[in-house]
Amino acid sequence: MRKNNIPQVTVQRTAMYVQVLEGLLERGEDIVSSEKLANECGVNPSQIRKDLSYFGEFGVRGLGYYTKDLLKTIKHYLCIDKKWNCALVGVGNLGKALLKSKLLRKKGFDIVAIFDIDPFKIGEMVENYKIYCVKRLKEKVKSLNIEIGIITTPSKWAQRAANAIVDAGIKGIINFAPVRLKVPEDVKVDNVDLSTHFITMAFNLIKDGGRR
Amino acid sequence: MRKNNIPQVTVQRTAMYVQVLEGLLERGEDIVSSEKLANECGVNPSQIRKDLSYFGEFGVRGLGYYTKDLLKTIKHYLCIDKKWNCALVGVGNLGKALLKSKLLRKKGFDIVAIFDIDPFKIGEMVENYKIYCVKRLKEKVKSLNIEIGIITTPSKWAQRAANAIVDAGIKGIINFAPVRLKVPEDVKVDNVDLSTHFITMAFNLIKDGGRR
Repeated sequence: MRKNNIPQVTVQRTAMYVQVLEGLLERGEDIVSSEKLANECGVNPSQIRKDLSYFGEFGVRGLGYYTKDLLKTIKHYLCIDKKWNCALVGVGNLGKALLKSKLLRKKGFDIVAIFDIDPFKIGEMVENYKIYCVKRLKEKVKSLNIEIGIITTPSKWAQRAANAIVDAGIKGIINFAPVRLKVPEDVKVDNVDLSTHFITMAFNLIKDGGRR
Repeated sequence: MRKNNIPQVTVQRTAMYVQVLEGLLERGEDIVSSEKLANECGVNPSQIRKDLSYFGEFGVRGLGYYTKDLLKTIKHYLCIDKKWNCALVGVGNLGKALLKSKLLRKKGFDIVAIFDIDPFKIGEMVENYKIYCVKRLKEKVKSLNIEIGIITTPSKWAQRAANAIVDAGIKGIINFAPVRLKVPEDVKVDNVDLSTHFITMAFNLIKDGGRR
């Protein structure tokens, strides 16, 4: 297995290739050239070829890749050919949006239980899920085989949510609260910052002379 | 101006550095070494030094960077030392979450008008904003000087939202709907795919032997 050697950025880009490849497959494109894939993904072809080389030898010279095979292999390699059960802590607007996301479910990420710290929310029903108190996280993680925790609480409650998630034995947290969480070394945190997209857009608009 | 020469990935990483630098400044850290900044950002120091070199000569040998100066220069360079007015189309859960986001506002991205295609939503009030019909987008874009459009509609309405945004003269779209939009060449679209974060997390959990 070469898994440990794959750079983080390659994994991130590959996650995007999966998205694009699925779109191509839906449109009936059984074969895709690295140029076409590159164009759809907005990266250059040599980058794509380099990234994909981590997953094995795929390309058919002069032809490109078989979309379905490539997709299957990548998904297996990234371990997204299996279901991942997730717990969501913080049932506000963003939490509800994630809960309703068909895309996440399609990709194999299932939010199977939802929690909150706000006593006024506990017990409420959202999308057929009952909101539990975070104190019950540990129990649910075991019974539902939950492996990923999602934090969508307000900032002031994010650390408490993280503590409960860590305490329940979850090793991966996707954090949407704009707060740096303190967690043990063996717990991975991905801080999602949507403002990055806005900053990049602003820069690109200026760059091409859209303003000033 | 070297703006056109800055790679897209550098801009994206720099947006993250801004986030981290602001955190450091709030904690009173007036000077930061590239090693420390690298550690906080999860990239390597040589990468940081290379990225920052696009913005000029900053480093003080043996010391690091002056946090405030570095932040100010980057923000100016990325054009986020100004306010950017945004229009949001699709006032569902995700749209409401963005509307409430203090982080976006703090970064200078202000959602100044909200729109929907769903006739049942039009006229409703959300967070002191009235939901307008997308047909009024053009008029509002002019009167409110809107430069970025955000699409948070369901997939089936995303293209209609994009058409209205393009027709109103906006050149930058941040699209949260899992749909490839057709827009003229001079309009930039950033497709936000949150599942990327989940895929990367799954891979990282497996890599370190968390499962299987």
